[in-house]
Amino acid sequence: MLDALFKPRSVAIIGASNNPLSIGHIVIKNLLDHNFKGPIYPINPKSKFIKSFRAYPSVKDIPDEVDLVNISIKNTLVPYVLEECGKKGVKFAIVHTAGFKEVGEEGLALEKQIVEVAHKYGMRIYGPNSQGIQNSDPEISVYANFTFVPMFPGNISIVAQSGGVGETLKLHLYRIGKGMRMYSSFGNEADVSMNEIIDYYGQDEGTRAIMVHIETMKDPAGFLDVANRVTPKKPILALKTGKTSEGTKAVASHTGSMVEQETIVDAIFKKSGVLRFDNQEDMVNAAIAFSNQPVPKGDRVCIVTNTGGPAIIAVDECITAGLKLAELSTKTKNTLKKLVFQEAIVSNPVDVVATAGPEQYGGTVAALLEDPNIDSLLLVIVTAPFVDCEGIARKLGDIGKTASKPIVCQVITIEKWAEVIRLIRESGIPVYDFAETAAKALSAMSGYGKVIQRKAAAYKKYEVNKKKAESIIKRHKGKEKFLPQDDVFGILQSYGIPTVDTLRVKKESELERAAMKMGYPLVLKVDAESVVHKTEVGGVALNLKDKAALMTSFKKMSKKFAKEKPSFILQKYLEGGKEVIVGAKGNEGLGATIMFGLGGVFVETLKDVQFRLAPLSKEDAPQMIHGIKGYPILEGARGEKPVDINKLAEILLRLSQLTSDFPEIDEMDLNPVVALQKGKGAMVVDDRLKIIRT
Amino acid sequence: MLDALFKPRSVAIIGASNNPLSIGHIVIKNLLDHNFKGPIYPINPKSKFIKSFRAYPSVKDIPDEVDLVNISIKNTLVPYVLEECGKKGVKFAIVHTAGFKEVGEEGLALEKQIVEVAHKYGMRIYGPNSQGIQNSDPEISVYANFTFVPMFPGNISIVAQSGGVGETLKLHLYRIGKGMRMYSSFGNEADVSMNEIIDYYGQDEGTRAIMVHIETMKDPAGFLDVANRVTPKKPILALKTGKTSEGTKAVASHTGSMVEQETIVDAIFKKSGVLRFDNQEDMVNAAIAFSNQPVPKGDRVCIVTNTGGPAIIAVDECITAGLKLAELSTKTKNTLKKLVFQEAIVSNPVDVVATAGPEQYGGTVAALLEDPNIDSLLLVIVTAPFVDCEGIARKLGDIGKTASKPIVCQVITIEKWAEVIRLIRESGIPVYDFAETAAKALSAMSGYGKVIQRKAAAYKKYEVNKKKAESIIKRHKGKEKFLPQDDVFGILQSYGIPTVDTLRVKKESELERAAMKMGYPLVLKVDAESVVHKTEVGGVALNLKDKAALMTSFKKMSKKFAKEKPSFILQKYLEGGKEVIVGAKGNEGLGATIMFGLGGVFVETLKDVQFRLAPLSKEDAPQMIHGIKGYPILEGARGEKPVDINKLAEILLRLSQLTSDFPEIDEMDLNPVVALQKGKGAMVVDDRLKIIRT
Repeated sequence: MLDALFKPRSVAIIGASNNPLSIGHIVIKNLLDHNFKGPIYPINPKSKFIKSFRAYPSVKDIPDEVDLVNISIKNTLVPYVLEECGKKGVKFAIVHTAGFKEVGEEGLALEKQIVEVAHKYGMRIYGPNSQGIQNSDPEISVYANFTFVPMFPGNISIVAQSGGVGETLKLHLYRIGKGMRMYSSFGNEADVSMNEIIDYYGQDEGTRAIMVHIETMKDPAGFLDVANRVTPKKPILALKTGKTSEGTKAVASHTGSMVEQETIVDAIFKKSGVLRFDNQEDMVNAAIAFSNQPVPKGDRVCIVTNTGGPAIIAVDECITAGLKLAELSTKTKNTLKKLVFQEAIVSNPVDVVATAGPEQYGGTVAALLEDPNIDSLLLVIVTAPFVDCEGIARKLGDIGKTASKPIVCQVITIEKWAEVIRLIRESGIPVYDFAETAAKALSAMSGYGKVIQRKAAAYKKYEVNKKKAESIIKRHKGKEKFLPQDDVFGILQSYGIPTVDTLRVKKESELERAAMKMGYPLVLKVDAESVVHKTEVGGVALNLKDKAALMTSFKKMSKKFAKEKPSFILQKYLEGGKEVIVGAKGNEGLGATIMFGLGGVFVETLKDVQFRLAPLSKEDAPQMIHGIKGYPILEGARGEKPVDINKLAEILLRLSQLTSDFPEIDEMDLNPVVALQKGKGAMVVDDRLKIIRT
Repeated sequence: MLDALFKPRSVAIIGASNNPLSIGHIVIKNLLDHNFKGPIYPINPKSKFIKSFRAYPSVKDIPDEVDLVNISIKNTLVPYVLEECGKKGVKFAIVHTAGFKEVGEEGLALEKQIVEVAHKYGMRIYGPNSQGIQNSDPEISVYANFTFVPMFPGNISIVAQSGGVGETLKLHLYRIGKGMRMYSSFGNEADVSMNEIIDYYGQDEGTRAIMVHIETMKDPAGFLDVANRVTPKKPILALKTGKTSEGTKAVASHTGSMVEQETIVDAIFKKSGVLRFDNQEDMVNAAIAFSNQPVPKGDRVCIVTNTGGPAIIAVDECITAGLKLAELSTKTKNTLKKLVFQEAIVSNPVDVVATAGPEQYGGTVAALLEDPNIDSLLLVIVTAPFVDCEGIARKLGDIGKTASKPIVCQVITIEKWAEVIRLIRESGIPVYDFAETAAKALSAMSGYGKVIQRKAAAYKKYEVNKKKAESIIKRHKGKEKFLPQDDVFGILQSYGIPTVDTLRVKKESELERAAMKMGYPLVLKVDAESVVHKTEVGGVALNLKDKAALMTSFKKMSKKFAKEKPSFILQKYLEGGKEVIVGAKGNEGLGATIMFGLGGVFVETLKDVQFRLAPLSKEDAPQMIHGIKGYPILEGARGEKPVDINKLAEILLRLSQLTSDFPEIDEMDLNPVVALQKGKGAMVVDDRLKIIRT
């Protein structure tokens, strides 16, 4: 519980000073300016008074109990004062001081030391190298942070890994006069973690929406766990920055190169229903919509405007953001036709025209809210000088207070009509400067609507031969190399994942008999540890139709790869199938990342892949397959027959089960899996599997 | 020349009224409030005075010359008053009145009538159904518009098809205290056109950047012409809305379905160097950067910050927007190391840390501006309470005034440090609320840098047999159907576009001799007017290796298509080539749209295509080929050899020449063109060509 951190009954400031530029001084000022409800104890061994407060040489000298201390003294002195705090019974220490983990080895040691000292006394460390916390709850009103954006009550809580980003988000809310609930920027996360803070916000009744800024996720499994618990109750809006730096790493394996922190974070967000945003502005504008508007039941939006152009922009942006234009019911159309002027357009977008007054504009909105075909409303209002704009705003305000569907709004106006904006905002309807912003906010709300409506994930457990897989995997544990194909096929088969008919051939003399046994057409592949990308180096011959073709290829490869002393693999050639790739990458302490994509250039050149975290639910697997851009190819483009998509989904689920049973599987590429026609199955043709964790 | 419109020496208001809600009244008030430099003449047959002005019953009664009239009387009365205006020698009439083209047939007739009346007297019509114009030039200061956003001088000019969008753009500038030069929202465009206005802005010395909002381009060829002339002198920033509604049309042909208004507009923008934006906010924020900052010479940006997180966001956004992170020179690094505090990070992004004062922050920026490796700077500044923030701003302001490289900036602050923002903005450096915005603005500037640096387009003219093509085309003019393949091949060959060996076969008896002549492997195709998508219906057999295979396919098709009474086409099968699609779609009054894409699913499913307007320059053709996402496939992915890209480029150029010579070609699909290995050429294998214009 973080109550003593976010709801401290008293705060001591270690490093308090009369220098108005010092952090200690600024924190006291912030606490005072925001009317902190508890006592403040400045600690300073030299000054008797700090900013009219009696100062104490040490926390030990404070006559009362202390919940929270803010520390901004020299880094090397921190362990010493923490000992004193511990003895005093302090519950939380916000360490603003920098010079810990972020400066290298020595700092890291010091960081570990301060956590040890704290834990010895049952005290918790927030930071070090942290900004601090805020809670606008009027009963508490604590601003234990050295930043400058003024705080007033609201219901959006923020946790930001970067203080600068946190400040930018706070600032945007402040600028438009929107309050905030709790804030924290936690620095090095030596003890109190981001996940704990999100969990705390999740349980806070005064928080209706949570904004999270992440640079690197310290504990992905913990995040997943917390997010899974919070998102059914309230939306988590997230911004993950440092996206592009990850993109430059080059890793040998296909799956490996694509499954990086970015991908894992994205998969975690998808799994737990966290709403991801591309930029700060979109996130904070969406948070404003969540703060007062009901969550839409669906994605059918109706746009209402009194000026044409911006409504067209709203349509573009809604459609681009994945919303649908609602089809007005006949009843609504009839109601509207009686209500609006003759020039008005009674279809979606509804254009009530600039001369519409309170009765026309307000009446239209009221009628649309009644229409069962509509899930949300986006309004565009220009304050036309020739109508009663405040009257419109008053009407909309009245409607907004009780509407059970979300309404967002762009208002085009200047100071003269400030009351229009005030009236609309007062009712909880967010007012944006641009139609695009309103559309994006609505789309985020609709996305969250899907999150809370989604069914509890259903998981299927197949009957498998776990023992057999285990015995193979055991043999390879701790070896940092790819397994021989026979073993990989063995593992796959034991989990019911179909593999293509395969025979291993060492020398020419065995070739013909093997071929006879399998039947043409065949595939011949070289198999040697040193040959990784077989296709690229001419180590695969496809569609060999007879003995002559087989022998020619065999001789060519034997010569080419003589140095590698290879054996050869003979496989059934699967005619008319489509190649896909299925992959898995193990994640420490978290389910594996499962990948699905079309084969070859689609993965390598077009990066058309989908990722999800294992365990995959029954819904996840088909969603992954449908999620790739090239999906129509699997469905049968250009007169071709569809492939066996159900079987592909089953393979994904079985693979998920395999990785869940054996978290030591580090990397696995089933490449290609050949998907045959609908009803005819799919088979793994080639693969790579590495096990590193022991 | 639009001088009498944008620089009127006098304005008469027809429809002037003492009713403060009337357009006539509002326009007079706007003219007065903005201190219009010429006389104002209210026209009202009933009132003797309007708003303290002497009113006249008719323009005829005005004792002085009148340049411009604003008309807001009933639509049917407009022709009558225009007669009077014409006789008076009025030069321009802004018609605010609605009820013309936009209401149907009758309105359209009225619209034609008013233009006729005006032209009879050498007068021009602006509108009808228009907002009006504004010019903030202090010598003129005309606000002949009924909108409400106050105007003050600046150097950004706006032309908006939608008044609501125009107002939103003006409003954003106004909100951040940024001036504007000229404004116009032109309504129905019955006479004075958007293109004329852009041309006028282009010639206006007081305009440094032009923002354009377009819903439908009335005269694409005219736009291309004007934009080509303006963009070398000043940037045109454009927003085209109504994007998604276009996307739903379904047209039979591949090329046809993709070459729509959206595509043409995009191709026109590309060809003329117009900068296209996705939304209003990005456009107006970029315009602000253009208004005072020099254009960057390249795309290497250096980020400077005094707080970590926002700089990471700036990096993400710069990279995403196509910029590169500059590599600091050793000299710069050495200079910085002496200048900044020990904790500072001297690499890109440069983190001078929050304790940096004017010397550290200002000195760093000055040193970076000297570095030849850097083209532009993006600054992030949080006003840390413990440093002299105004001092930093003053220093940056001094630097900004004379910098020859663009600087953009995010400032995180509140009212208390308003002077910081004021000082920086005063120097011309734009200050944004979010790092993302700053990065996007810089990327737009860098894009414009490329536009002004690009060489004059070079065109190649091949020697062709135009006569032969002409004789074939003549035979088909005016027929709305696809040409027989022999004729299309004939046209292509006469323009030096290689086609695959082809023989037409009518009956079985001719088949074998034809096959012998060409040599296996072969392709057999059905050919009948009623069979359009041959592949999908089983009308194509590929890679027929011998007589038996050929005969089987022939019999199958003969039976299947018996009803269509087809003939058959026999072609050489091109082994190991890659299929691409080349297409052209004729545009009335404009060069054809030329398309390039990979074959099959890449076009149909992944929409991975590039479009350019003919005539293609020598640079256009390779740029189109490189521009598709699947380009690595042509370059030789997965160990394959590259295809003959030069030959593909040549085919594009020859096709461009063909469409330029014959604008009557309406639609042409070369699908597929098979690109062979580098040096071995490329050949058209199948095609469709339609000529409708006569």
